Amino acid sequence: MAASSVPGWKTAVTKALEEYPKSVVIQLASIDATSPVPQVRSHIFREFLTPTSAPSLPLLVTTTDIRTPKISQVISNSHVQVAWWIEGTQEQFRISGLASVIPAAENALHKHFLHNVKHAPSGSALAAFSKEDFDWEGKRMALFKSMSAHMKASWCRPVPGTRLEGGPDEAKKWPERLEEPGDHADDETRKNWETALGNFALLVVDPTEVDFVELGVMPNRRTRFWRSSSGSWDSEAVVP
Amino acid sequence: MAASSVPGWKTAVTKALEEYPKSVVIQLASIDATSPVPQVRSHIFREFLTPTSAPSLPLLVTTTDIRTPKISQVISNSHVQVAWWIEGTQEQFRISGLASVIPAAENALHKHFLHNVKHAPSGSALAAFSKEDFDWEGKRMALFKSMSAHMKASWCRPVPGTRLEGGPDEAKKWPERLEEPGDHADDETRKNWETALGNFALLVVDPTEVDFVELGVMPNRRTRFWRSSSGSWDSEAVVP
Repeated sequence: MAASSVPGWKTAVTKALEEYPKSVVIQLASIDATSPVPQVRSHIFREFLTPTSAPSLPLLVTTTDIRTPKISQVISNSHVQVAWWIEGTQEQFRISGLASVIPAAENALHKHFLHNVKHAPSGSALAAFSKEDFDWEGKRMALFKSMSAHMKASWCRPVPGTRLEGGPDEAKKWPERLEEPGDHADDETRKNWETALGNFALLVVDPTEVDFVELGVMPNRRTRFWRSSSGSWDSEAVVP
Repeated sequence: MAASSVPGWKTAVTKALEEYPKSVVIQLASIDATSPVPQVRSHIFREFLTPTSAPSLPLLVTTTDIRTPKISQVISNSHVQVAWWIEGTQEQFRISGLASVIPAAENALHKHFLHNVKHAPSGSALAAFSKEDFDWEGKRMALFKSMSAHMKASWCRPVPGTRLEGGPDEAKKWPERLEEPGDHADDETRKNWETALGNFALLVVDPTEVDFVELGVMPNRRTRFWRSSSGSWDSEAVVP
């Protein structure tokens, strides 16, 4: 398949999402930073982000909190796999790839992202975006602003996964909603906005292989897709 | 919590399943057998299997094909994690534990299961089952028989994930359904039954830690549970 073509797996995801737009819960697996133990959690798929010059290279975009354990996991080992089960169509996509975290430009971890961009493998989406001088901080800001007020507030809580020092009632003190501060906003809202925006990060997956299983058709079908170093995709039919 | 008590996370799973009995799709993450790469795929949760003597130690039971890559993965590294998102209640369970594969008693891989049973950690479900001399082959047979005829037929296909040598049309030659052979069954049905039953395996997860997030309540709640070497569970409230 030519490097200019949209890969078949992406066409299939897009088609399934048109029919079932709520099927955006994906499971992202990574490996623990200190021991050979797998970790997996649900994420919300936000969008595909595709370089203008390379329609064959969609990045999978999701969002996270820069203070969660998955950050050190993907910084120490960027290999991840996403499982995406779409109940309505009975289709499963398993997307293998390299993950990058895109924190606030002023965050100390931003240098890891710059390192990933600089050393992005030939034929990857990240390498193509790098050539286009893509505005990642602008993208991060735009996605943060598109979140619900309730979601925005989740990024100014204490560190996720840490003990609730004040007991279960402590959570009632946290802001439930966070709106962008206008000209007359109070100091607390401004401070919460800065905190939340500082903790908000993109997590992008640059796909290298996709296993697509179709259980909604008889006989069942399964297709393996893999990306070459030229940035094009090959595929073959395999046993489900 | 006493070793005789059902752990809080299991009570929560059971309650959610009573309300949403179809929410049995879980994602099981393991680590590739030859490289530090995570793997994750959807499985169907079949049941909790609990030792008679230890209600605090439910095993999570799912089923698989003994010829799939996850088998060598969990044999070389039994650490797995399950992500279980229950859309209806907006609850996520992340279940960390040790996986065991239970193949047909005559399969060469059965010795790995016996090894796991013999070396099961103190306080684990597998150790408790071992003391009770549990009939694993009987359980495997019973679960196989409970599968739909369509599912049963899936275990007599060629090796999952291998190339479709005959092209996409090859799949049309595979049996679509497989029923238990009666007294007058033909040789092909008998042979398919033996093949499928030989490939059918249980994959059980012996939980050691559970991260339970409740996004359906305001403020959101998150609880961490962990198993002690006595087989009892402790828990604490953490930041969602």
